[in-house]
Amino acid sequence: MNPVAFIESKRDGKEATTSEIRDFVNLAHKGEIPEYQVAAWLMAVFFRGMSGMETRTFTEALSRSGRVINFPPDINPVDKHSTGGVGDKTSLVVVPLAAACGVPVAKLSGRGLGFTGGTVDKLESIPGFSAHLEMGRFIDQVRSTGCAISGHSGDLAPAEALFYELRDVTGTIPSIPLITSSIVSKKMAGGSRAFVFDVKCGSGAFMEDQLSARELAESLVDLSASMGRGSMALITDMSQPLGMWVGNAAEVAEAVDLLLGRGPDDLRELSLRLTASMVHLGRPSISLDEALSLAERSLEEGKGFRKFEEMVRSQGGDLDRFQERVSRGEHLSRTIREISAAESGILTRCDARRVGDAVRFLGGGRLSKKDAVDHGVSCQILRKIGDAVSAEEPLARVFFSGEGVRWEEARAGLVSAFEIGESVTPPKLLLGSVGPREVD
Amino acid sequence: MNPVAFIESKRDGKEATTSEIRDFVNLAHKGEIPEYQVAAWLMAVFFRGMSGMETRTFTEALSRSGRVINFPPDINPVDKHSTGGVGDKTSLVVVPLAAACGVPVAKLSGRGLGFTGGTVDKLESIPGFSAHLEMGRFIDQVRSTGCAISGHSGDLAPAEALFYELRDVTGTIPSIPLITSSIVSKKMAGGSRAFVFDVKCGSGAFMEDQLSARELAESLVDLSASMGRGSMALITDMSQPLGMWVGNAAEVAEAVDLLLGRGPDDLRELSLRLTASMVHLGRPSISLDEALSLAERSLEEGKGFRKFEEMVRSQGGDLDRFQERVSRGEHLSRTIREISAAESGILTRCDARRVGDAVRFLGGGRLSKKDAVDHGVSCQILRKIGDAVSAEEPLARVFFSGEGVRWEEARAGLVSAFEIGESVTPPKLLLGSVGPREVD
Repeated sequence: MNPVAFIESKRDGKEATTSEIRDFVNLAHKGEIPEYQVAAWLMAVFFRGMSGMETRTFTEALSRSGRVINFPPDINPVDKHSTGGVGDKTSLVVVPLAAACGVPVAKLSGRGLGFTGGTVDKLESIPGFSAHLEMGRFIDQVRSTGCAISGHSGDLAPAEALFYELRDVTGTIPSIPLITSSIVSKKMAGGSRAFVFDVKCGSGAFMEDQLSARELAESLVDLSASMGRGSMALITDMSQPLGMWVGNAAEVAEAVDLLLGRGPDDLRELSLRLTASMVHLGRPSISLDEALSLAERSLEEGKGFRKFEEMVRSQGGDLDRFQERVSRGEHLSRTIREISAAESGILTRCDARRVGDAVRFLGGGRLSKKDAVDHGVSCQILRKIGDAVSAEEPLARVFFSGEGVRWEEARAGLVSAFEIGESVTPPKLLLGSVGPREVD
Repeated sequence: MNPVAFIESKRDGKEATTSEIRDFVNLAHKGEIPEYQVAAWLMAVFFRGMSGMETRTFTEALSRSGRVINFPPDINPVDKHSTGGVGDKTSLVVVPLAAACGVPVAKLSGRGLGFTGGTVDKLESIPGFSAHLEMGRFIDQVRSTGCAISGHSGDLAPAEALFYELRDVTGTIPSIPLITSSIVSKKMAGGSRAFVFDVKCGSGAFMEDQLSARELAESLVDLSASMGRGSMALITDMSQPLGMWVGNAAEVAEAVDLLLGRGPDDLRELSLRLTASMVHLGRPSISLDEALSLAERSLEEGKGFRKFEEMVRSQGGDLDRFQERVSRGEHLSRTIREISAAESGILTRCDARRVGDAVRFLGGGRLSKKDAVDHGVSCQILRKIGDAVSAEEPLARVFFSGEGVRWEEARAGLVSAFEIGESVTPPKLLLGSVGPREVD
């Protein structure tokens, strides 16, 4: 393995061999190839891309760089991944709901970094909830309860973490083959047999335009299929936050509301679509349409909620105590401020990115990896794009701790998130889909 | 200074500001920007290039990263740089010859690495020759003798060394703006007022085709001019070795031969052209044509040789002893082998790269930075492209130490360097020129 020749070959647009790629990943992971050579290769990949074979081999090498979860042959779990959005609490709904429809779900989740929240952070708002399960317990719970959500453990695909951390500091994050291999390698190590991807598109997402979102969705589905996994991707709007709440505890409360039949329409629609995709992939004899009806029925009959209760209990969480706190509003931070409409008209913009940034800035997300998260910080979105608003009417209500100068800064960002005009076509929630694709 | 934003901006083809570039070079040099970020930036530059302003600022920052030689205002020395070739001993000729024509020459030279030899290695074949002069002594000798050749000291443009070493191991050597800034930054730190570049083109050179050689030549001249230095570049053939000898001591002997009026035509022609360029840049009142005549006259009258003697003596070398050893053939290694023509015909190829590789492999050059060099290893080229050859006639004679398996390997490379056919147009030595350019 000659790392310089390997970099030069990618730089010149040539295809590497499978053994070169495997050696490169393994040696880099062992620290035997220095980070500056990995960094140069990553930038060359940014410009030259990777062939299907290269992406597959790279993904495989990453996914096998540590432990791999092996589910027994009688459990065929589905995993779900969102590329990250603001107010995106669908995992809390779709994991138990798909399980309630008879499809085992083994959801591995990362912590939130940047302006998007992580499912693990949200779940940790529930007193006692244990969001990091031992591998054996994870498998057992999927078997006994039908679903489990656990933080992505460091011994799964550790080489992926190395490459990701280098990408983060070398300007090589936005590369479709690198994003795809990063996501799929972790899903592969998680051991599920099929994956549903929610590719977010818009200001509050990594992919800001539909063309690149579709490209990513296709790449994710192609790669998963080529690795022997069923998969499907939805491309969904993230120009405004999903649902009416952004912030950890508030999002759990909103997800529980939905499971109890009361949540907002956009969250409900997307959750049902994702659940249907998961159910169809897990039980291919059920068509997508049938799966959608089944998901709707299960939601209405409260089966999703009961499964959620069961999952939370199984992971040590006290949902009753959480719900009590919610009923008294204690899950939200105490200082409350509002953003109001400057004039009357139609709300034409409610920028997801800016809302996410404000919540993060006030302590609801991490500015650096080691930061603790304040689960009570949240932003209630009172009006969404297309709604009529009157001057001075509140558009958003913000909950945070303490007073101080931070609010003035967060406020400026939030004010700029909203725009009022004369008319607007509200964004479509579902922008497209790729798949379902069976195993190649 | 945000290194990630700096890398991303280059990745996306945007122009950096002068202060960003300066900060980047300074922080990287201090080790405050990690090598993986420098590596990613270098690869981004490979793909995106640099604007004239960026290249100039980058070069300036490199050249000022350590000590800078300041010649007193009454000395206006010229420096000469070759991009590196096989059998290229012109510096040994043109430095004293231009000085003999009244132009001070302050030549800074690197050690040979790769398949091309370095002037310092060659000169160290002369007993006692001190190829590393203290800065003060270097300036004094240029004043007193009119010329000096010294190894490039580590405290001149040290940041350049850092960037070069990273380029070497990250596949980012072949980038015109990076090559140009690397060369010119060292020349700038060397303090000369004008530069003559010999851009080699062909199999034995870094630039294998004329288009890229011309691009590099233009870039070198443009950059030098924009930094207030007079400059000129010759683009010259390096498809076959220059002269009849490759190897350290043998090349010094051949250069001395030329200075004594006996050297081969190609070496003579190129040396005169380079000298004329140097003389014209150093004394602009003398036209290029006049400078060529002056150089020819100085060579014929032995003025170049006497200046060479003076320079060697001034740097502690014993030329008489060297010449005695040459007269007895003792400057060459003892084991002698020949490569012979397989058939009769016209020599159509005498690949410079393969000859250079063979000499290096036998110990005449370095395989790694710390290797010692065997000054006696050499290859005598007996026939050049276009010469008629008879079957079994020797084409090259190789001198090395010991026997062993290394010869068999070197032999295979050398045999493949030569090709015999029916006819060929011998390569032109001078392929083009850029400049002379006065200061912008």
